[in-house]
Amino acid sequence: MKDAREMETSWLESANGDTDFPIQNLPYGVFDAGSGARMGVAIGDLILDVAAVDHGLDPALFSAPSWNAVMAAGPEVWARLRARLTELLSDESQRAAVEPHLVAQSGARMLMPLEVVEFTDFYAGKHHAMNVGTMFRGAENALPPNWLSIPIGYNGRASSVVVSGTDVRRPHGQLKAPDAELPHFGPCKRFDLELELGAIVGQPSTGPVSVAAADEMIFGYVLLNDWSARDIQAWEYQPLGPFQAKATATTVSPWIVTKAALEPFRVSTPARERDLLPYLQEPQPMLYDIDLEVGLAPEGKDESIIARTNYREMYYSAAQQLCHHTTSGCPMRVGDLLGSGTISGAEKHQRGSMLELSWGGKEPITLDSGDERSFLEDGDTLTLRGAAKGEGYRIGFGSCAGKVTPAGEFGA
Amino acid sequence: MKDAREMETSWLESANGDTDFPIQNLPYGVFDAGSGARMGVAIGDLILDVAAVDHGLDPALFSAPSWNAVMAAGPEVWARLRARLTELLSDESQRAAVEPHLVAQSGARMLMPLEVVEFTDFYAGKHHAMNVGTMFRGAENALPPNWLSIPIGYNGRASSVVVSGTDVRRPHGQLKAPDAELPHFGPCKRFDLELELGAIVGQPSTGPVSVAAADEMIFGYVLLNDWSARDIQAWEYQPLGPFQAKATATTVSPWIVTKAALEPFRVSTPARERDLLPYLQEPQPMLYDIDLEVGLAPEGKDESIIARTNYREMYYSAAQQLCHHTTSGCPMRVGDLLGSGTISGAEKHQRGSMLELSWGGKEPITLDSGDERSFLEDGDTLTLRGAAKGEGYRIGFGSCAGKVTPAGEFGA
Repeated sequence: MKDAREMETSWLESANGDTDFPIQNLPYGVFDAGSGARMGVAIGDLILDVAAVDHGLDPALFSAPSWNAVMAAGPEVWARLRARLTELLSDESQRAAVEPHLVAQSGARMLMPLEVVEFTDFYAGKHHAMNVGTMFRGAENALPPNWLSIPIGYNGRASSVVVSGTDVRRPHGQLKAPDAELPHFGPCKRFDLELELGAIVGQPSTGPVSVAAADEMIFGYVLLNDWSARDIQAWEYQPLGPFQAKATATTVSPWIVTKAALEPFRVSTPARERDLLPYLQEPQPMLYDIDLEVGLAPEGKDESIIARTNYREMYYSAAQQLCHHTTSGCPMRVGDLLGSGTISGAEKHQRGSMLELSWGGKEPITLDSGDERSFLEDGDTLTLRGAAKGEGYRIGFGSCAGKVTPAGEFGA
Repeated sequence: MKDAREMETSWLESANGDTDFPIQNLPYGVFDAGSGARMGVAIGDLILDVAAVDHGLDPALFSAPSWNAVMAAGPEVWARLRARLTELLSDESQRAAVEPHLVAQSGARMLMPLEVVEFTDFYAGKHHAMNVGTMFRGAENALPPNWLSIPIGYNGRASSVVVSGTDVRRPHGQLKAPDAELPHFGPCKRFDLELELGAIVGQPSTGPVSVAAADEMIFGYVLLNDWSARDIQAWEYQPLGPFQAKATATTVSPWIVTKAALEPFRVSTPARERDLLPYLQEPQPMLYDIDLEVGLAPEGKDESIIARTNYREMYYSAAQQLCHHTTSGCPMRVGDLLGSGTISGAEKHQRGSMLELSWGGKEPITLDSGDERSFLEDGDTLTLRGAAKGEGYRIGFGSCAGKVTPAGEFGA
């Protein structure tokens, strides 16, 4: 017997077939189809202009070109909006009223779905931490002593978060060759991606919150590519962590997939290798079963899938990360973005960065086009995709893409 | 012969004597004297309600309770406003029009003078880096290899920046005793201050900028106390830098002292011990001669001055830091706040943190009250003060104060 969720369909044909955006998903974005930035929900291959329909909520929530006001309105409003949109898009009797407010995704430009107030990036994938640690410190000392106790995180730059489709210019920076005594200044030679999931904080906090309360604060998730300049990072990161290596750009997918849509796909974090302190223990499954992949297309050539992995590989959930983030009393705000950390699996083809895939450049990978890659080259387009797979439908994230453009002359 | 600047006086008595706020200063803040948040300029022991006088600029610049709009308007507007305020407060004929819009500082509550969009903290004091490095890694390896080449920085949390006068609650966090195998969770025992100057970015950038252009982007400076939980920091900071150790609070002084007011006090950075890469070289003196001090008053007792130093001790200027911050292409925005890093001098009494003053707790200091301190105790009030000293006047920052309150129960 199918459950109620599987049976839900839309009166819109394209929402019922092979799509990232069935009626069960209803992700939120901001689009421009020629008449300015508008708040929309993806359905099949179309976008519904949410402000234009009878959504039953305060119109002020839909007056800005970002989802921050809706997030700030809280979980009850989130649930009411989702229920209403489900009704509008599944009930045939609503069709005439709704149809005039649908536009084709193919004719719309997607914009940032939210105003990111601050960006925090974590380091919570154990395979990634082991791989990177082994390369830099040897297998014996791969995991830092704190790693199994703390969801390690650092603050990133909100100002450099961009939406899918934005070109990413190869950065300049200070580089020091291993055999050089002093650094020089020039274009990054080891430019990389990091496959991550981004959690969007939809409710504020003013003091420490529990893991359960942190989970309640999360509005939804996006795909996130934390572009990384490995050579800049290697020289700058001691003792205070990555800075300019991570400041060029962070690309997010344009659709916020809500926590509500992902609910059926909750899974527990992997078995603990060291007991967590009580404040970090998860009261219920807090990760999600989301298949992820990375495509790399050299300029003018077909794309190769260079990595396939799953979000359930993470050692810490976004709720655990957010809880830890508040332990010091650090206030969290509507629009905070938390990167999961690179999501790598145990196998070589599951690695979510070029650093790992090419083992620090020592084992270049060969693309379907025959090209070899150790790190990213100018003209490469990187595309992240992801979906949680139900019976007869999938909750997709769309794509998170960015093309590497040449560094050019410094300052020009 | 006195220069023009020295001869400037106000028709307001209290601006011409022993004050942080003579006519040469004119720092900007946001105050509430009982009728809501207003934008003000400090003069003597009073505050002028800027929006209420004939300032000659677009009133929209003064409609929000923050100086961000004025900053965004750019250097020409900054200069016009300063010239007009100087005229209003020095020309006796303006007195009747201006006087009704003055309120006593003693009767006003100061609020955050700007909306901090992001906060970056640097590590640019060489004496501080040497002291901390010696304690953690020994004298031979005190300075990290990159330190003389890079103004090392990391991203902090804008959400936890608070204005002087805000209590600071001792944080909880993960702590690991040196002889313990595993961490425990509890209140920080090594809570500390860091004496810094904060530079406020008043103009945006979208790509790399030169040191000279970076200097032009800076609107002004505030005193900044980067509260630090040393025991949390010691356990968490490898490999990605400080996170929760620095997220409890960062206190800033309520008056933004403009770059224009500090102009006569420019000094060069100290002699280079290693040539800087060309992009970081300063085209003119970019530091300022600003005397700084830290006062510590235990609960109910008199204050002791525990440190006296000067901003000219920094190895890198804010302009150099801001320039470096943009090398990756990282966009900077109006309202970015850059902490200088702890400002310590060569002498023991010039150290800008308890970590250094008590040498990691091994050499507790004795206060005038007879109390001993290794780190901060509950009830301690820390007050930073600073002033650039001219002939016959001083450009003061007012005070940057915060009181440590008990950690209490976690999450309560």
